[in-house]
Amino acid sequence: MIDLALFGAGQIGSIHARGIAANPKARLKYVVDTRAEAAQRIAAATGAAIVDRDAALADPAIAGVVIASATDTHADLAIAAAAAGKAIFCEKPIHLTLDRVDACLAAVKRAGVPFQIGFNRRFDASFRAVRDGIDAGRVGKVELVVITSRDPAPDNEDYLRVSGGLFRDMTIHDFDMARFLLGEEPSEVFATGSCLVDPVFAKLGDFDTVMVVLRTKSGRLCHINNSVRAVYGYDQRVEVFGSSGMLRAGNRTPTSVEHSGVGGIVTDKPLYFFLERYAESYAAELRSFVSCIEEGRVPEPGPEDGLRAMLLAESALASSKSGRFEPVRAG
Amino acid sequence: MIDLALFGAGQIGSIHARGIAANPKARLKYVVDTRAEAAQRIAAATGAAIVDRDAALADPAIAGVVIASATDTHADLAIAAAAAGKAIFCEKPIHLTLDRVDACLAAVKRAGVPFQIGFNRRFDASFRAVRDGIDAGRVGKVELVVITSRDPAPDNEDYLRVSGGLFRDMTIHDFDMARFLLGEEPSEVFATGSCLVDPVFAKLGDFDTVMVVLRTKSGRLCHINNSVRAVYGYDQRVEVFGSSGMLRAGNRTPTSVEHSGVGGIVTDKPLYFFLERYAESYAAELRSFVSCIEEGRVPEPGPEDGLRAMLLAESALASSKSGRFEPVRAG
Amino acid sequence: MIDLALFGAGQIGSIHARGIAANPKARLKYVVDTRAEAAQRIAAATGAAIVDRDAALADPAIAGVVIASATDTHADLAIAAAAAGKAIFCEKPIHLTLDRVDACLAAVKRAGVPFQIGFNRRFDASFRAVRDGIDAGRVGKVELVVITSRDPAPDNEDYLRVSGGLFRDMTIHDFDMARFLLGEEPSEVFATGSCLVDPVFAKLGDFDTVMVVLRTKSGRLCHINNSVRAVYGYDQRVEVFGSSGMLRAGNRTPTSVEHSGVGGIVTDKPLYFFLERYAESYAAELRSFVSCIEEGRVPEPGPEDGLRAMLLAESALASSKSGRFEPVRAG
Amino acid sequence: MIDLALFGAGQIGSIHARGIAANPKARLKYVVDTRAEAAQRIAAATGAAIVDRDAALADPAIAGVVIASATDTHADLAIAAAAAGKAIFCEKPIHLTLDRVDACLAAVKRAGVPFQIGFNRRFDASFRAVRDGIDAGRVGKVELVVITSRDPAPDNEDYLRVSGGLFRDMTIHDFDMARFLLGEEPSEVFATGSCLVDPVFAKLGDFDTVMVVLRTKSGRLCHINNSVRAVYGYDQRVEVFGSSGMLRAGNRTPTSVEHSGVGGIVTDKPLYFFLERYAESYAAELRSFVSCIEEGRVPEPGPEDGLRAMLLAESALASSKSGRFEPVRAG
Repeated sequence: MIDLALFGAGQIGSIHARGIAANPKARLKYVVDTRAEAAQRIAAATGAAIVDRDAALADPAIAGVVIASATDTHADLAIAAAAAGKAIFCEKPIHLTLDRVDACLAAVKRAGVPFQIGFNRRFDASFRAVRDGIDAGRVGKVELVVITSRDPAPDNEDYLRVSGGLFRDMTIHDFDMARFLLGEEPSEVFATGSCLVDPVFAKLGDFDTVMVVLRTKSGRLCHINNSVRAVYGYDQRVEVFGSSGMLRAGNRTPTSVEHSGVGGIVTDKPLYFFLERYAESYAAELRSFVSCIEEGRVPEPGPEDGLRAMLLAESALASSKSGRFEPVRAG
Repeated sequence: MIDLALFGAGQIGSIHARGIAANPKARLKYVVDTRAEAAQRIAAATGAAIVDRDAALADPAIAGVVIASATDTHADLAIAAAAAGKAIFCEKPIHLTLDRVDACLAAVKRAGVPFQIGFNRRFDASFRAVRDGIDAGRVGKVELVVITSRDPAPDNEDYLRVSGGLFRDMTIHDFDMARFLLGEEPSEVFATGSCLVDPVFAKLGDFDTVMVVLRTKSGRLCHINNSVRAVYGYDQRVEVFGSSGMLRAGNRTPTSVEHSGVGGIVTDKPLYFFLERYAESYAAELRSFVSCIEEGRVPEPGPEDGLRAMLLAESALASSKSGRFEPVRAG
Repeated sequence: MIDLALFGAGQIGSIHARGIAANPKARLKYVVDTRAEAAQRIAAATGAAIVDRDAALADPAIAGVVIASATDTHADLAIAAAAAGKAIFCEKPIHLTLDRVDACLAAVKRAGVPFQIGFNRRFDASFRAVRDGIDAGRVGKVELVVITSRDPAPDNEDYLRVSGGLFRDMTIHDFDMARFLLGEEPSEVFATGSCLVDPVFAKLGDFDTVMVVLRTKSGRLCHINNSVRAVYGYDQRVEVFGSSGMLRAGNRTPTSVEHSGVGGIVTDKPLYFFLERYAESYAAELRSFVSCIEEGRVPEPGPEDGLRAMLLAESALASSKSGRFEPVRAG
Repeated sequence: MIDLALFGAGQIGSIHARGIAANPKARLKYVVDTRAEAAQRIAAATGAAIVDRDAALADPAIAGVVIASATDTHADLAIAAAAAGKAIFCEKPIHLTLDRVDACLAAVKRAGVPFQIGFNRRFDASFRAVRDGIDAGRVGKVELVVITSRDPAPDNEDYLRVSGGLFRDMTIHDFDMARFLLGEEPSEVFATGSCLVDPVFAKLGDFDTVMVVLRTKSGRLCHINNSVRAVYGYDQRVEVFGSSGMLRAGNRTPTSVEHSGVGGIVTDKPLYFFLERYAESYAAELRSFVSCIEEGRVPEPGPEDGLRAMLLAESALASSKSGRFEPVRAG
């Protein structure tokens, strides 16, 4: 049995708490959050004790920590957990500034502890099957990747103000997906953004609608498009085109029902949002983390994956200002 | 918390044990099975105690029983549970002979206990959505129903020998689905069967491939086709056609991935078999049973549903011999 | 250049006139119809001369005739054309009574002229591809066939009164499709019908909604369902299931457009009716007829196909009254 | 009856000759091509006379010309036809250099003759339906457009050498489609290209794989991706996303057949190439041209559409070298 401590009892923390509870190999021993009510709810549902950070990290029975607290606490918690020798599962992003990311990854490396970054979409069955198909040679050499990623509705201003901006908060998942599928590191990024959905984005100097082009050294190309509002629900698709075929993963629907009527043939909208679409992938990434601890394997995606997606976001942001291909920091 | 006792620790029993364990409103207090190893496995996973039938039924804390034992024990167990005043969830069929079914339902009625029959497909999200669409008037008046139901591969001879035959064991689910969707009781049944897949069916005087036509008093028509072998996996579809449209529920697939290659556009086969396709519906039917106990509601599908599907199977069997429309017993 | 004479300048006659005009190998030399305006329209569009029956048949330049006149004239015209040594393309049905069909086929046989019956659906690209797939072994041994055939709206009473009834007028196409796909002759027919759509059908002693089951000697089974009204348009699908797979042909749509909105994902309804769905197949069957004349090949489907579909319709009608499997006349 | 003269008896010329022959409102009076055999083939099939350019333009009966000759003759022919007062249908591109395009459009404007440019995809039923849906408000305000356009296989080196390069020859269609769907003129273009398919493209200083981003003044964004080789056939899709929904047009297939087997569910590949996919749209654009002449309407797409697509191609080419957003010439 792997004993874990959870930092953060908010929405994502609760998802992870449930995932741990459903995993016969793991137990949630501690939940850490100063918001008493939220922590209490998780404690009641899972049997976890509510303690503070230092107590959790001081318990030698704790094999790993799950960091799902506010973004600006991720790096500090990860550094402390690394110092305590704990395996670390850290929600993305590690931090909104690169120097803190670098510092965190250096600490993790020094400590030699397992570190998994929360790019849960890699554990979505359909995206995973696309990657497996690529690895099995079903598209031949990858040449073009197209990623569509649109939220059903924008977040509220309070969240947006601290989110780091669209590229760092939303596109970051797509940057990781691009790396997951391209088979080569992007070396140049072009990005352009607009404010078409909600004036709050313009007010914050942010975008609500973007298009990105990534290019690798050998010339493989990837397109990403994002919008913060899709009236038909969460739109999450990938397409990988290569020398011997194409693999596509479409949206998932609640049912397989089709209605034929005078107005046309109607099928379900996609599952509404990430809680529905990625419910399984959240559970799967935690199962993988636990198995890695148990079996002494290196977890994936790892710290480097967290860093590289950040670097793509930084270059995209720069490109959206310069109007040109921006290089990506090498290491 | 609703305390339950489970009779039968086999495949379906294990599914129900897991469903109860995942239900925060219920607890599996007892598991009853003379096969020690199977019972022990469930006990270990759920914390249930292994007791005998009488002990389980004698415990006043037990609110309900889940009968998932061998088919020929269902009726006896249900009668005993009814006498003990327990709510009953009973796997289909109640019994292979009509007189035992009648006796069982009489006992349940006398005792006035809640009784739910295990027609889990009514809880499949897609089939449920079709029914909800009918109720919402999306097809207008129902006129034609087409039910396709094919297993990936035939059962083994040992099972087939005690199954009661295809109509009573396999088509029974489709008879219930027909009733679920038709909105009227079928009053006549035509059925014809062949042995095309495996000689063991002919040897047992059974069929492996059948077509059925049901007719209601007002002239609504329903077609069912079954095969015990579909090389592409479990094929479970329904189609309801009416005066203002059609609703169809298709198969479900593991992923949404599509491959385009020189040989065509390829998508996933359906989920392989009932454990995969109906995993959610098994859990949902148990949640519904528990909620009915908790809230004092009458569970659905009920004893009458168990009986009426049996009566359709009996008439189908008679028709497959007589070559003509056979009436269905009224009550 | 193959010179043809067309009997009948109505809706189907006009379709065939266009098909001949578009065929570089054929020329429409004569159109025969006492309805002057209709004949004139075709003459103007194609350059055909308007003549009477005897003149058309007496011209030795005429290699073949296309019979698209009223149903009760088909047999007489075919017998006269056979006597004149012309190749015959005859719209279905040959006649509504079996003795006239027998007489017609005997005359055709005696004359030794090529005879093609107008089962145009055999030339639909999708149904043809299903048959080709069967011939190529893609489903293995055929076991189950399901044919869905629904018109968008019922014909008017004047037409229905002389149509011969649903089995002989509408299901006849599906009986031919069943034979096209089953790979064996059906030997028994079960049919049941209802009046659910329009009271005129009951008034005429006809049905507007039917289900049929066909059975071959070796036990292959086929289901057909018909309705005279589908609010979403012409519904024409087939499904062939066998020992190593399934082939399905679905409806065709005007465009590939899909709309995602708050109400769901909406795609096109099927092409509205037979003029749209089978436009290509009408042209293709005429091209085949012309090529057969040119190359001295025996056309398909032939006179036997016209007869056997009729025999199935007769048995279906008998079954709908007797409530039992009815045998099909052997020859 | 509208009399037309055709310049160019090659592949596209033959398509247009057939389209004119099938149009009851038009007649192909002349075909002009120094390649005698090709001209003879069209003359034989349509009854057109073979004449030289000046004779065709001198005939006052000729209402319009169809220019489908070699690219570098388009502008000269159009200028001569304009001087002769003929309506002009001109295959894209007008010319490979902008100054000749400008000169040609000036001549057309001076002469005041109708001018239609051969962007046939605007007449594809599915793309047209997307545009109609936009005009009907089905996506609300357009925000994102994604255009996928991939050929089944690259052209040969001889063609590529004179094609003007991928942006001017292939992407040009997609630039027009972008304008057709965006509802606003793109003001900036970003493009990047690779040589991944065939070394001949590198040798010619061209690309075989490209990604483009277009941006309009108000911030609407459009992505285009191209490859010269898709092993599964011609891949032609568009997606338009806006404030109240999304419209997508997918590929078209030869049949609606689906095979379910042990390897998955397999459907048809797209129609193989432009001759199959756009057969109908070639005929439709000519019908539209003829109707415009007949009814005195201004044809669409017009000369400005030919110019603006060229300007986008020029900016794309510049961007692929500069690595930055390039502005588009205003007029």
